[in-house]
Amino acid sequence: MKKYMEMNKEELLKEKTLLDKQYTEFKSKGIKLTMARGLPCEEQLQLALPMLDVLNSKSDCHDASGMDCRNFGGLQGISEARKLFGAYMGVIPEEMFIAGSSSLTFMFQCLSNAFLAGVYGGEKPWKAYKKIKFLCPVPGYDRHFAMCEFLGIEMINVPLHDDGPEMDQVEKLVKEDDNIKGIWCVPKYSNPSGVVYSDAVVRRLAALKPKAKDFRIFWDNAYNVHYIYKDRPLLNILDECKKAGNPNMVYMFASTSKFTIPGAGVAFLAASKENVDFLSKQMGAQAISWDKMNMLRHVRFLKNMDGIKTLMKKHADILRPRFDASLETLEHGLSSVGVGSWTHPDGGYFITFKAKGCAKRIVELCKEAGVTMTGAGSTHPYHKDPEDAYIRIAPSFPGVQDIRVALNLFCVAARIATIEKLLK
Amino acid sequence: MKKYMEMNKEELLKEKTLLDKQYTEFKSKGIKLTMARGLPCEEQLQLALPMLDVLNSKSDCHDASGMDCRNFGGLQGISEARKLFGAYMGVIPEEMFIAGSSSLTFMFQCLSNAFLAGVYGGEKPWKAYKKIKFLCPVPGYDRHFAMCEFLGIEMINVPLHDDGPEMDQVEKLVKEDDNIKGIWCVPKYSNPSGVVYSDAVVRRLAALKPKAKDFRIFWDNAYNVHYIYKDRPLLNILDECKKAGNPNMVYMFASTSKFTIPGAGVAFLAASKENVDFLSKQMGAQAISWDKMNMLRHVRFLKNMDGIKTLMKKHADILRPRFDASLETLEHGLSSVGVGSWTHPDGGYFITFKAKGCAKRIVELCKEAGVTMTGAGSTHPYHKDPEDAYIRIAPSFPGVQDIRVALNLFCVAARIATIEKLLK
Repeated sequence: MKKYMEMNKEELLKEKTLLDKQYTEFKSKGIKLTMARGLPCEEQLQLALPMLDVLNSKSDCHDASGMDCRNFGGLQGISEARKLFGAYMGVIPEEMFIAGSSSLTFMFQCLSNAFLAGVYGGEKPWKAYKKIKFLCPVPGYDRHFAMCEFLGIEMINVPLHDDGPEMDQVEKLVKEDDNIKGIWCVPKYSNPSGVVYSDAVVRRLAALKPKAKDFRIFWDNAYNVHYIYKDRPLLNILDECKKAGNPNMVYMFASTSKFTIPGAGVAFLAASKENVDFLSKQMGAQAISWDKMNMLRHVRFLKNMDGIKTLMKKHADILRPRFDASLETLEHGLSSVGVGSWTHPDGGYFITFKAKGCAKRIVELCKEAGVTMTGAGSTHPYHKDPEDAYIRIAPSFPGVQDIRVALNLFCVAARIATIEKLLK
Repeated sequence: MKKYMEMNKEELLKEKTLLDKQYTEFKSKGIKLTMARGLPCEEQLQLALPMLDVLNSKSDCHDASGMDCRNFGGLQGISEARKLFGAYMGVIPEEMFIAGSSSLTFMFQCLSNAFLAGVYGGEKPWKAYKKIKFLCPVPGYDRHFAMCEFLGIEMINVPLHDDGPEMDQVEKLVKEDDNIKGIWCVPKYSNPSGVVYSDAVVRRLAALKPKAKDFRIFWDNAYNVHYIYKDRPLLNILDECKKAGNPNMVYMFASTSKFTIPGAGVAFLAASKENVDFLSKQMGAQAISWDKMNMLRHVRFLKNMDGIKTLMKKHADILRPRFDASLETLEHGLSSVGVGSWTHPDGGYFITFKAKGCAKRIVELCKEAGVTMTGAGSTHPYHKDPEDAYIRIAPSFPGVQDIRVALNLFCVAARIATIEKLLK
């Protein structure tokens, strides 16, 4: 078939008539599907159910250090959780802080503590500065941006390439402006574009020489073991920061939400011992301890790194057909007419679709026919995608059949929106 | 025996020689006990263990509304938790927000959200004011004060009487000063003095006319059903606020930490629907959802208000002998010589000891002989007890025998410190 770019007006109008008919048929079907958020699906949720049998009324609920997990105390988490998740993060237990059930909430707590009371080695709280800024590689994660917006932190877009953020720009900006206090990174199978930061990018990030002495890399390693097609390596940025003389420059976050039970998992931070101790002191004014029973439940279920890897292979096996179906449907529906482009991630939870100048219109057309996509613009700070290009596709939750239905509609919508734009 | 106040110098010196000998004997015993924090004891912890059997790998994990508790979402909590804990708080489900495992952490989140982004109906965030102040009835809870200190909120002491805070002073202060944005209250079996606010005090609090339109009563009803000797009534302050035309003036907090598993319970807020919706919007930038599995586990274990009451009777039966032993030991060791005074609480977790001018010295003497008490001064903002009088005694955790040992030492310490003071 001819690419739309090569069609004349008449051909486009003819094609649009056909597509409008298909679209009307979709609308008449009463579809109600969502591909909006990165929710694990039913089969994935079932993988963790045996964890619910791990602790019962007969269980010994003391941790390896003898602490009673049934009582208050132990702000930094139970010892076997610091050990296991430390191994997961590539750090020693003293560099771990195990928190509540949500890494997002803990990220916010770290961010707002920096804002309210400063970070280790900082001169004063971030709130004492007239203006605070964060670098935001785009496309990125909407919930990171929402936190900055809540705190009134100005966000600066930085392009995210296949190997990570545009480092020339990052280096230049942080060197010049001491109001830039941080950068958001999802370094592996990034949300939403699925890129993995290269060794060179990780090393350049670790070796940054920010003008702000209280600069922090917020390293949201949410998808560390969440491969689907290929387990890609990622350098340990804390190691690299130490080598570069910046041991305190990074906060690494992760959680078990997408190993076990989303929202009822265990979240954690890895950072230098100085950062962990400083944060613990701040947290002491805000918490007595987090849910140590759930930490115990998790560690006894996951056991060790092999346990995590075995579990994650099962997740990959469940997600792969969903990604296969998504990629096939996009390929089949759009390639021949040259509409849009999309990522082929090795892991993570998302495919990013790029359709210059008509993302909003595509999402709107999907919505009207019963398929909810993540709002166009969500991939950018302030929901402002200057190119109106990016759409995040989340194939994890629906079944393969539903994915085909939803993305077939998506393809029709993308084709209509593209023609509308060409005809303008 | 003669009261110390009535003894002459010679008699006091003679008594002190005897006491010093007793104290030395205590020291030689190598005691290591703590009566510092309100930790439930082993027998109490066992009461909740059957809760660990409630959810297993075969359980249906959907809430009453059909929401899957195993996945993300449901920021305000699962429907049966909002219903049950709503009944517990005396409000409708729409007036409930179910949060993580710690009411303290959630209080901090509400406080810091007010600070960072304001409250419902407020003109601007509290941080936009030059100076923010909170009223702190004293003696009070050290962790409330620590939160204010963390946020740089100035604390103003207000005397706490047997029926609640000194209301003339509270009314006058909030009417005059719009920098006063809140008051901390533990209205029932207050921490640490065990008082229960009278109906009159609750009504006066609810009818406050603060100059600050964004004033909030932080109502930490931690011990609502935690009677030991007598279940005392407490007016529902949200009802009273509504009657007084102040429906949005109160945030009521509580948790199951001292029903079930401390630190692994369920925390919640009750407030006007306007407050709940406003807070939910703020929280939306900080959290996806809290641990709904733990909510489900709790509701299925506790079942209903009768379930809570039955459980709390068992707690009372376990705590009563500990409070009996504490009160008997104090009575036996101190009454005849007229040293100090102490509360006789009907419920809660604490006895407050008052020894004008030598609280620090008593705690120090106890510490040196192996018994840790809550630090003197902890009952007051900035750890500054102007009378050096208050000591919080926490009898819940140790066994009856240990309590007798610890408090016998405490009595000796209190007698020595009192004589030292009289001899000065």
